[in-house]
Amino acid sequence: MTALVIDNIGLLVTNQPELGEGPLGLVRDAALVFEHGRVAAIERAGAGGDEHLDADGRCVIPGFVDSHTHLVFAGDRAAEFAARMAGAPYGAGGIRVTTEATRAASESELERTAAVRREEALHAGITELEIKSGYGLEVAAERRLCEVASRLTDEVTFLGAHAVPVEYEGRADDYVALVCGEMLAACAPHCRWIDVFCERGAFDAEQSRAVLEAGRAAGLGLRAHGNQLGPGPGVQLAVELGAASVDHCTYLDDDDIAALADAETVATFLPATDFSTRQPYPDARPLIDAGATVAIATNCNPGSSYTTSMAFCIALAVRDLRMTADEALRAATLGGALALRRDDLGRLAPGARGDAVVLDAPSHAHLVYRPGVPLVARTIVAGRA
Amino acid sequence: MTALVIDNIGLLVTNQPELGEGPLGLVRDAALVFEHGRVAAIERAGAGGDEHLDADGRCVIPGFVDSHTHLVFAGDRAAEFAARMAGAPYGAGGIRVTTEATRAASESELERTAAVRREEALHAGITELEIKSGYGLEVAAERRLCEVASRLTDEVTFLGAHAVPVEYEGRADDYVALVCGEMLAACAPHCRWIDVFCERGAFDAEQSRAVLEAGRAAGLGLRAHGNQLGPGPGVQLAVELGAASVDHCTYLDDDDIAALADAETVATFLPATDFSTRQPYPDARPLIDAGATVAIATNCNPGSSYTTSMAFCIALAVRDLRMTADEALRAATLGGALALRRDDLGRLAPGARGDAVVLDAPSHAHLVYRPGVPLVARTIVAGRA
Repeated sequence: MTALVIDNIGLLVTNQPELGEGPLGLVRDAALVFEHGRVAAIERAGAGGDEHLDADGRCVIPGFVDSHTHLVFAGDRAAEFAARMAGAPYGAGGIRVTTEATRAASESELERTAAVRREEALHAGITELEIKSGYGLEVAAERRLCEVASRLTDEVTFLGAHAVPVEYEGRADDYVALVCGEMLAACAPHCRWIDVFCERGAFDAEQSRAVLEAGRAAGLGLRAHGNQLGPGPGVQLAVELGAASVDHCTYLDDDDIAALADAETVATFLPATDFSTRQPYPDARPLIDAGATVAIATNCNPGSSYTTSMAFCIALAVRDLRMTADEALRAATLGGALALRRDDLGRLAPGARGDAVVLDAPSHAHLVYRPGVPLVARTIVAGRA
Repeated sequence: MTALVIDNIGLLVTNQPELGEGPLGLVRDAALVFEHGRVAAIERAGAGGDEHLDADGRCVIPGFVDSHTHLVFAGDRAAEFAARMAGAPYGAGGIRVTTEATRAASESELERTAAVRREEALHAGITELEIKSGYGLEVAAERRLCEVASRLTDEVTFLGAHAVPVEYEGRADDYVALVCGEMLAACAPHCRWIDVFCERGAFDAEQSRAVLEAGRAAGLGLRAHGNQLGPGPGVQLAVELGAASVDHCTYLDDDDIAALADAETVATFLPATDFSTRQPYPDARPLIDAGATVAIATNCNPGSSYTTSMAFCIALAVRDLRMTADEALRAATLGGALALRRDDLGRLAPGARGDAVVLDAPSHAHLVYRPGVPLVARTIVAGRA
């Protein structure tokens, strides 16, 4: 297989401190050599190679790893969005609207629209992403979502416990039994992960524990939605059960922060969701200062965060979650990889998968300095431009 | 000249209430016909034509009119930006950094970098923009900026009164005399407008009045920066002198709102600036509810708002300035045109200049619903795709 070389990189972010300056492992005037889909070497600019891409002094970063999306769905919730912007509150109920549209959609429509979104995310520099089910909420519909998602990524998450469907109104425990039984059995073969929306109005601590433990017994890794709309047990439960990630983390108390600081569980922020739901932004500082590992993800979904722009999420994380540009870049790349427990992603070191983004900018700080400007000039996945 | 037709428009925003539904004059299933650089007709979808562009059911809006930019400059202030994000306050002093770099740059470098930014803005759907001088702050340097700007737009603004340059430290009145005398005489032939930064730390009410009155005597229209960093006299002065626009408007009291409600002076918001300076966002509601005319502009400049994304400004205006998506779209198109006193821009009605944007979305609400996603599929200027 021929090698691809990105040459004349003004600033290369490796996320590998021993390869360069500072925690981001910055290398100046570099060339990045890919072979067999992986990073083969980092050399001085001027390396040449079979296939040559000139970065022209610009910045190259690891591909974004988006560890939280709901990419497979049908329907549009622009009207609900407009109502919310005019003052209506955000609740978990809107999930049902998308569930209805998704159940009614054909498999080919789900595949086609999800592929369009995957392509859009790729153009935005996202080289790997996780996809959750959760808009089926019945056995066949959830299995179908997992199957469609598995054609787009290896990182498929079974989220039958996304909301209690209308058919189970007032019988949440019965629904949890379905999720942990027949539905899990149907979905697990297509999935790597299980997730639960642990929140007032969705699933309580006991129900969430049942879901996660059933998933673990079926061989799945654990993830959780927690502490989004108010204080709650999600973070502590995720840490206790050794989940790879707990996502949202808007309302954390000192015990939650201490638990995350000591855990391998990644705290994943979804800033575009706080933007789109007009919720308060979490403060990332206490968590980072305590030593917790953080990630940033898009949460791309039609209700609360219909974006594929990791750059937008990074800009918000700096402006409103009080992260530095370096911390935010790392969270959107290496943080996402850690949240998916993937050591081949999120860094540009020999042996890692060849996923890189050429920015139309001299440094990654421009992702914040130039908000809203599409700065992704080129996305390389597994060494292919 | 051959006609261009944009056909199969799912939703057309005309900004002309008598042409369609509601204040945006929405027309569904339309075709837009351009001739001789202008809008010739709005027809039913299926119109055909010499040159045919299929909108495929998507939304078409008037081109964005960006009534406030500082597009011609040299240098980069990413480091100052990063420091601010790490807690440093924003002041007017940073202008001097750009002034130093701009004075030192060659004319061809200024031309080349400004043209790159103009192109970027065009891809972001901005079909007309204003450009201010203000990084020269000496006669020859200001004249050079006005000349360079005049090669990119007819809407050039002389902003010699952007900051007191270091050479005049402690002698602001002497600098104002220079601005109103020799500098104005050198710049006026290249400009349509004069502007002043009326703010504590920049120019006070008396100095600002002197600048604007001198500009008016030289035949220029009036604009002002006012009430950005705190309450101040900028808005009242702009209204009293009949300025076309007063920009920023973050700190308004009841008298300011009442004055703007009764005036032709447009209140222009620059939300990306509040984002990038971590200043509080203005509340647009009282102003709009009182009946004032509002615009949204990017304020593209290297210190406080380095963006060409009007879509980003619109999303912030809805999320944080409390405008509706309809109000924000109108403010970024027709509002900008009114702020430049141009009746040929900002609307898609027969006779208007043929400036339109095809969005990769079924409605303009997606500019807010899908934050950070580049939704401008095609920009048409004066009937040319």
